[in-house]
Amino acid sequence: MAGEFDLIKRYLAAPSSCRTRRQDGYADIGSASTGVVLGPGDDATLLSPTPGHQLAISVDTSVADVHFPSDAPPHAIGHRALAVSLSDLAAMGARARWYLLALTLPDVDEPWVKALAQGMHELAAHCGVTLVGGDTTRGQLSLSVTVHGEVEPARVIRRDGARAGDCIAVVGTLGGGAGGLRAWQQGERALTPLLSAYLYPHPLLAEGYALAGYATAGMDVSDGLLADLMHLCRASGVGAVLDLAALPLHPGLVEAYGLEQAQSMALHGGDDYALLLTLPERDVPAAQQALQGAAYTLRVIGRTAAPGTFETALGQPLHAQGWQHF
Amino acid sequence: MAGEFDLIKRYLAAPSSCRTRRQDGYADIGSASTGVVLGPGDDATLLSPTPGHQLAISVDTSVADVHFPSDAPPHAIGHRALAVSLSDLAAMGARARWYLLALTLPDVDEPWVKALAQGMHELAAHCGVTLVGGDTTRGQLSLSVTVHGEVEPARVIRRDGARAGDCIAVVGTLGGGAGGLRAWQQGERALTPLLSAYLYPHPLLAEGYALAGYATAGMDVSDGLLADLMHLCRASGVGAVLDLAALPLHPGLVEAYGLEQAQSMALHGGDDYALLLTLPERDVPAAQQALQGAAYTLRVIGRTAAPGTFETALGQPLHAQGWQHF
Repeated sequence: MAGEFDLIKRYLAAPSSCRTRRQDGYADIGSASTGVVLGPGDDATLLSPTPGHQLAISVDTSVADVHFPSDAPPHAIGHRALAVSLSDLAAMGARARWYLLALTLPDVDEPWVKALAQGMHELAAHCGVTLVGGDTTRGQLSLSVTVHGEVEPARVIRRDGARAGDCIAVVGTLGGGAGGLRAWQQGERALTPLLSAYLYPHPLLAEGYALAGYATAGMDVSDGLLADLMHLCRASGVGAVLDLAALPLHPGLVEAYGLEQAQSMALHGGDDYALLLTLPERDVPAAQQALQGAAYTLRVIGRTAAPGTFETALGQPLHAQGWQHF
Repeated sequence: MAGEFDLIKRYLAAPSSCRTRRQDGYADIGSASTGVVLGPGDDATLLSPTPGHQLAISVDTSVADVHFPSDAPPHAIGHRALAVSLSDLAAMGARARWYLLALTLPDVDEPWVKALAQGMHELAAHCGVTLVGGDTTRGQLSLSVTVHGEVEPARVIRRDGARAGDCIAVVGTLGGGAGGLRAWQQGERALTPLLSAYLYPHPLLAEGYALAGYATAGMDVSDGLLADLMHLCRASGVGAVLDLAALPLHPGLVEAYGLEQAQSMALHGGDDYALLLTLPERDVPAAQQALQGAAYTLRVIGRTAAPGTFETALGQPLHAQGWQHF
């Protein structure tokens, strides 16, 4: 097993273009742009934080048949595990810098591991984040990804800054995670836009960074819009009134499941990794402007209100339902 | 399961003495001494790195029945998982600052989780390291601990700085990990010094920090002295000559298993978490002096030599054997 795990380590190592390899796998990156002073191969990796910035750290574990189907394509499993963690940095308005992967595998299937590494590396390259360490062990399939971002103190997006009367806005689409998962469970294997939303969520790093100057509060939508909105409202000490007709439903969701189901998936489904933000109404045009060139626009879906209020624009009460992911 | 996991989160949260709790578990630490600007509860934790320092990061996963017996005391499982990761920071000469725990559990046994958390918190308090994040998921028992330390650039201990003619030294004892594991496998359950060496390894943070000004190279002994010494020698481009009679055998090891077995456990056994260092002979007295007040002294066990040389002081060739932990 030890020799096979050395093989895995090679696949999971950062692409060779950004490393100087030595005979024993000891890596000396020494690149100012990546901030990596000493790469994996020693007891610890050494990083050079950017002066004047705070470090944003988050860890998420994805367990097979709990957070994703174990027979999902390995390329998607790798992408998804990293995306889920990076989404937390997007929600803080942070710039993603470094990540570590603790990978547990039941056995070594070389093409499978290669595809998993490729899915992860491709997203990492796209997001400008560098793999700086990891550990590979034997056991039930799971991926624990720790991500590190950097953020200027004045530009941090927290959950607790919303004020009553702020607009509630979403960047990205809703319901695609739940709709895509249902499609997978119904046997869909072609990478339709819906299934892609579930298997290949995209962390909205550029969007979060662009909006950091405008948002009074924010978080990512991972457990379902209502559950996450309730977290934000509780942290900020406000309530919320939502316009359900304004929800940015994922393309194809209504066609696949009908309006009622689509709205329910948008409200209660998880795994969307959209950004949920609050901001003063007067800042909405400037925030829209800041998103020019990004993949998504900002959709205003409601208003914060007095604490205790949690209802639709028509006065119907809203209740979050638990979302069990897989 | 979700409600039970909220319970776990409470046990695993940093002890309340260092946090300001709010109604929703949102923590605002804001302590200059811990460096934590925003504690767990938001999408990411925010930390304030110390100016002029580099960040040392390492992750280790401990899987039940791979890295530790699943029926080991939970208090020891928690201690051990953190200790293994902190030992990597000790080996870099870093000061331990922050850690994250990704915990995967098959089911929720409240007293068991409480004891695990206690074992981890006690070691964390002893080492001055703060829990700043985590994730709890359902699955095969495993703990993935990511640790963060800080180190002044001029005081980093790397693996690749040894020069031919340096003294090879060990801080801590050898063979206790293998001897303690064998005792456990033979049914020993009383916490003898040997079993304690396996279940409760101690990360030598104070020792690594004190020696950072003297060591030309260093690492921790986790895979067995010879295997780890070979890694250090390869990274530094040197060989080694060892005086087997000088090995700091763990107390009780010879009495329990005889000299030959004890030496073999010290050379090939793993899980010792001693520090392996090289330093110029002229610096040995000052290094000993720097360790005054620490738990362990420095024991010189050999000399680095020309590349390719790897033998005992009597000229017998040395070969590392693979160590499979559990």
